[in-house]
Amino acid sequence: MNGAEFDHWSQAELARVEAALSAWVPVDAPVGLGEAMRYGVLDGGKRLRPLLVLAAAQAVGGHDEAALRAACAVELIHAYSLVHDDMPCMDNDVLRRGKPTVHVQFGEATAMLTGDAMQALAFEVLTPEEDVVPPRLQAQLCRLLARASGHEGMAGGQAIDLASVGHQLDEAALRDMHRRKTGALLRASVQMGAACGTTDARAWEALSEYGWSVGLAFQVVDDILDVTQASETLGKTAGKDADNQKPTYVSVLGLDAARRYAGELRERAQAALAGSGLPQPAWLSVLADKVVDRQS
Amino acid sequence: MNGAEFDHWSQAELARVEAALSAWVPVDAPVGLGEAMRYGVLDGGKRLRPLLVLAAAQAVGGHDEAALRAACAVELIHAYSLVHDDMPCMDNDVLRRGKPTVHVQFGEATAMLTGDAMQALAFEVLTPEEDVVPPRLQAQLCRLLARASGHEGMAGGQAIDLASVGHQLDEAALRDMHRRKTGALLRASVQMGAACGTTDARAWEALSEYGWSVGLAFQVVDDILDVTQASETLGKTAGKDADNQKPTYVSVLGLDAARRYAGELRERAQAALAGSGLPQPAWLSVLADKVVDRQS
Repeated sequence: MNGAEFDHWSQAELARVEAALSAWVPVDAPVGLGEAMRYGVLDGGKRLRPLLVLAAAQAVGGHDEAALRAACAVELIHAYSLVHDDMPCMDNDVLRRGKPTVHVQFGEATAMLTGDAMQALAFEVLTPEEDVVPPRLQAQLCRLLARASGHEGMAGGQAIDLASVGHQLDEAALRDMHRRKTGALLRASVQMGAACGTTDARAWEALSEYGWSVGLAFQVVDDILDVTQASETLGKTAGKDADNQKPTYVSVLGLDAARRYAGELRERAQAALAGSGLPQPAWLSVLADKVVDRQS
Repeated sequence: MNGAEFDHWSQAELARVEAALSAWVPVDAPVGLGEAMRYGVLDGGKRLRPLLVLAAAQAVGGHDEAALRAACAVELIHAYSLVHDDMPCMDNDVLRRGKPTVHVQFGEATAMLTGDAMQALAFEVLTPEEDVVPPRLQAQLCRLLARASGHEGMAGGQAIDLASVGHQLDEAALRDMHRRKTGALLRASVQMGAACGTTDARAWEALSEYGWSVGLAFQVVDDILDVTQASETLGKTAGKDADNQKPTYVSVLGLDAARRYAGELRERAQAALAGSGLPQPAWLSVLADKVVDRQS
């Protein structure tokens, strides 16, 4: 497997995701809501979660339409969380991906409704008529996504994040926060893809372990980049997390140990794939490397 | 069917709903999130939506555990919408049911996360393991709830509501707004209950029509009470809607015509039940009367 093959695959898959999202996110929802939803989810981001869904589905020979819907649903949940996170009562961010954030562009009330409607749309995308996706699979995908999004997962992690500003967390508490805040949805992405095909218990466990490891690695690398990018590109020694007094893997472990930890998590993810018994989890393997090696 | 029988039934059902919600809404979610979720959904409101679910399920001999879960899920969606609606960027309400609103009690950031987590929990409650509720029914319940909650339903109606402040709407535009904002979820409540049992196309159509009529009647009566309650108890001629320059059925039709319209909608709902072919839709019939005759 080389990088060019992966790029070819991922570009084709992301084009499908973009087209599907564009078809599902309504142009004509009432008075600006559709426009704000499209602004919030189209044309943006690395689309790591959809790629994890589709790579896992490919590894298990999964139901193609179901996997595409799962990829879009998980991205809608991620996008809604960003819209709400950016609002003044949360992180109060005015720019995302070089554009004004949704509440800056459309107002706070519309931004809140936009996030709410995106979450509902995620579950709508997962539940088409029965002849499109088998209903048993629809239910399983909703189950995985709901658990990863709510109080046990993403929303719970955000609550810990809010409460942790200005506090020192130990490494276990930091890991618990990130397992919920970003890890749960990243792991669910892998699991949703796996659910689209035939997965024995061994492969399911292995892919879940892969999902945890990649999810945590993603966050550790985020924390590293927050420091190193800031140092190199902005000419200061600490980035946004430090300014916001947020505990990070760099603040808790130090930069060198954080880098070593990211490498360990990559190895753990690759070992899980190797032990999965799946014949061809190639795209998942490349994705684990890309998460750790990324520079932005 | 007399009122005492209905009261006996509804009190027993609501006790089951309250116990189930209390079991499902987590005590131990991270740092205040569980507490805020429980504050926002337990011990409050008329619980009209759960009663519609359970009455419709009873009328079709529906799956009991599924109906109870559907009743709780639809109430979680309703409760989350109130938490978000009350926030400063929306209606900026500080009191609900005599208690400080969630954002007053717990802060805006927690209130936003609370609503977000409640929406996810609704779909989590609908998707237990497969031996608890048949997966085909799980998928159908998620489908109905997601469509009623999102841009086509509640969130879309709220967007129209936001945009309509200070504008005059004609009756068709007002009806469209309310069909989405409150009607879609009320109709979905009836449909979710109906989905829990065996429903032929005729009964499904009849119950859907019943749901639309009761949903719209609920809103018309809300608008009437906003004026008459204010007039009688506060000694002024217009209530909160008029103060907020929101178009209402009273402002568009006048008070007498609004009252006649509520009566027509009640008759339409009862006619739909009579034509449903269902042997015993008794609780639904009482509920239609209660929605129109209520004084608060």
